[in-house]
Amino acid sequence: MSTKKTIEARILKGFRDFLPQQEAARHQILSILQKTVKQYGFVPIDTPAIEYTEVLLGKGGGETDKQVYRFIDNGSRDVSLRFDLTVPFARYMAMHKNELYLPFKRFHFGKVWRGENTQKGRYREFMQCDFDIVGLDSESADFEILLLMNRCFAALGINAVHFHLSHRGIFNKFLSHLGISEHSAEILRTVDKLRKIGSDETLKLLTDLLGLEAAQKILAYISGPAAQKEQTVAQHNLAVLQDLQELSGGESAESQRMTSILKMADELGIADKLVFDASITRGLDYYTGIVYETFLDELPGIGSVCSGGRYNDLASLYSNEPLPGVGASIGLDRLIAALEELNIMQNKAYAADVIVLCQDENLLSHYHLVAETLRSKGLSTEVYPSAKKLNLQFGYAEKKGIPWGIIIGESEKRNGTLNLKNLAGRTQHDGIGLDQAIVLLTAET
Amino acid sequence: MSTKKTIEARILKGFRDFLPQQEAARHQILSILQKTVKQYGFVPIDTPAIEYTEVLLGKGGGETDKQVYRFIDNGSRDVSLRFDLTVPFARYMAMHKNELYLPFKRFHFGKVWRGENTQKGRYREFMQCDFDIVGLDSESADFEILLLMNRCFAALGINAVHFHLSHRGIFNKFLSHLGISEHSAEILRTVDKLRKIGSDETLKLLTDLLGLEAAQKILAYISGPAAQKEQTVAQHNLAVLQDLQELSGGESAESQRMTSILKMADELGIADKLVFDASITRGLDYYTGIVYETFLDELPGIGSVCSGGRYNDLASLYSNEPLPGVGASIGLDRLIAALEELNIMQNKAYAADVIVLCQDENLLSHYHLVAETLRSKGLSTEVYPSAKKLNLQFGYAEKKGIPWGIIIGESEKRNGTLNLKNLAGRTQHDGIGLDQAIVLLTAET
Repeated sequence: MSTKKTIEARILKGFRDFLPQQEAARHQILSILQKTVKQYGFVPIDTPAIEYTEVLLGKGGGETDKQVYRFIDNGSRDVSLRFDLTVPFARYMAMHKNELYLPFKRFHFGKVWRGENTQKGRYREFMQCDFDIVGLDSESADFEILLLMNRCFAALGINAVHFHLSHRGIFNKFLSHLGISEHSAEILRTVDKLRKIGSDETLKLLTDLLGLEAAQKILAYISGPAAQKEQTVAQHNLAVLQDLQELSGGESAESQRMTSILKMADELGIADKLVFDASITRGLDYYTGIVYETFLDELPGIGSVCSGGRYNDLASLYSNEPLPGVGASIGLDRLIAALEELNIMQNKAYAADVIVLCQDENLLSHYHLVAETLRSKGLSTEVYPSAKKLNLQFGYAEKKGIPWGIIIGESEKRNGTLNLKNLAGRTQHDGIGLDQAIVLLTAET
Repeated sequence: MSTKKTIEARILKGFRDFLPQQEAARHQILSILQKTVKQYGFVPIDTPAIEYTEVLLGKGGGETDKQVYRFIDNGSRDVSLRFDLTVPFARYMAMHKNELYLPFKRFHFGKVWRGENTQKGRYREFMQCDFDIVGLDSESADFEILLLMNRCFAALGINAVHFHLSHRGIFNKFLSHLGISEHSAEILRTVDKLRKIGSDETLKLLTDLLGLEAAQKILAYISGPAAQKEQTVAQHNLAVLQDLQELSGGESAESQRMTSILKMADELGIADKLVFDASITRGLDYYTGIVYETFLDELPGIGSVCSGGRYNDLASLYSNEPLPGVGASIGLDRLIAALEELNIMQNKAYAADVIVLCQDENLLSHYHLVAETLRSKGLSTEVYPSAKKLNLQFGYAEKKGIPWGIIIGESEKRNGTLNLKNLAGRTQHDGIGLDQAIVLLTAET
């Protein structure tokens, strides 16, 4: 064999190849999530991976910008890869509002790219699964997103999960009540770090900014009252809300809405899954109402696996007509890592159900005919394409995880029979008919 | 309302937004294709959208290069967006061969990017659906790709389709027999244009290159013998093969393989769908064996909607170990356009099956409970999120294509009943129970 200089086969840091089993698991999860959001009447959209930089980043700049894959294309246009699905959705709504209907319930599952530091399992190419209801400000929509978040996790087999909620509007009222509204952006960013840096460090940062008294009040607000022994979860959540309502100057439209949402959750049987948690603020500026984060009981350390909230204007960058909405986003990669760690995705049958082994290449047409019949019965079926030693063919089937093999020689073909073998070696049915094989296989798979 | 300067919401030329109905159709087609290829034991993989330019383009350059989205990333790496799924697959096999099993049957459905001229419905971002069997050179694999191509179109509801086949090896033997092998690359490229430019122009180009005599022989070869009245399609295909075999110097391993494949097609009942067509050469250099193209009977003008063939070395750029394979690729965008033109995709129920209308916001919990029950019965169900006028709610449902509405007021809730309305106005069932509604809806959807 001549040896020539080859190019090193490698991929970029922060990017990934998906092996068949991983990719099959991702397909399965995406399919479950799609089916679930469709059950609630959400419809799919898609947008380009590449857009004008001005459209994605606006005219200014910011922290995100450094992470954006930005370049000049062959037509001298300044373009960038999308870094989330929210900005393209805003642009999409500004362009297509007249072709759609409000309230518009869309889902968008797609890849995004960010040149982030690749430490700690962060990737530069990852998939987001977003769902939003835009075009009105309604407690029913706020609640439905929560209900759907819960349903998505249940559909994936995750019931040990809690949804942490808060309301940005109530927090803003509280800051205004303390007379420190002008620092709200910085306070929000600091409070958002509580889970990472702990309360001592948070208190210190807030004290530097606002003095000890205000800092202590904020810490008391975000910590909430302690749970009482005799309280149910629903009662405790209401007590936290009550407390925050008082700290923020009394009842308001915002606190009334949260009361309604908690009541609906109770009536729909999901109150136990909720934690009213005033430390959840979501760092992002655009949230104005309810905010959500999702923690897995058995893996609290991985952080929120589904987050979102209500914003009162999605498309302000492109349109003067306000477009309120509420939504959430599942970080698929973090979720898949969690499912693997929890051993939840069984991922049975990512390969075929049956393989027709090749004992004699003259019989290949017959093998393909048998396979076509099995497929027509819903059994995923392979034909081994050459008459290699049967041991090698068994080895192939085993590596691929195919549970059943069919062996047909000249005499079986003549008699209209086959030998069906369980490749883990437990059972073998020799000289049976194809109909009988189908009965056995359908019962097993 | 304050008016501020906004950014124009626009997208790049050659890129597309997908509205819900279009995107739902794409989901449906992808789902049918995935299900079909899985039935044959193909497994999914994925690769990054961005790779090192050297890995994608090799060290040289070429015609494709100008179309590639290529740039320097923030880490000063020369990178490009993938322009097909074949090159990344070759790199993937070179990297992961030891983690896989051969023969490896993979499918990869994904987006690719090319800065092509955007005339004639060509897009700069489009989706390819590739499936390949690599790791051995076998007639069974050549045939299985053909069988699967036919099954994919049948699964999409397209039976009026023909698969045009030829064999590059036989053509090469023919050229060698004529003593003009050294021009083979240019001849292949010229012959590949026959369908576009017609036989007169092809003859002229070939005459310029090779002289009239050789040009006429090539034209005779690619035109094949005329069909005889008494011949079946299968017989005619064999006659064409016989003819080419003689023109190329007699029987060879290549012509024997084509004979076997035609025989298998006959035995599997798909011979009528095949056209042995020596003008199909596929311009690309890397094909060495059978080549396929697919034409829709009712839309011949749109060109091939699924093409491929056998190559004897996929990963030669990255490895000295040869990796033979065979595969095909469906151009999803062209196929969707065809399905729309043929009116084949019905795309029923891309939105919800039922909407629970909101007559009274105090009953929202009840509406969500009713919706949850319907969903648990497999009915995709929306809850209208606010108590707007019923006419507006009906209008929303109609625009979205939701066929059924459920109306519940205070008295219905008290009596445990509901009113079920067909939104096209044909039927209305007042005061029925939820169980009865489920029976009616399940029968209808």
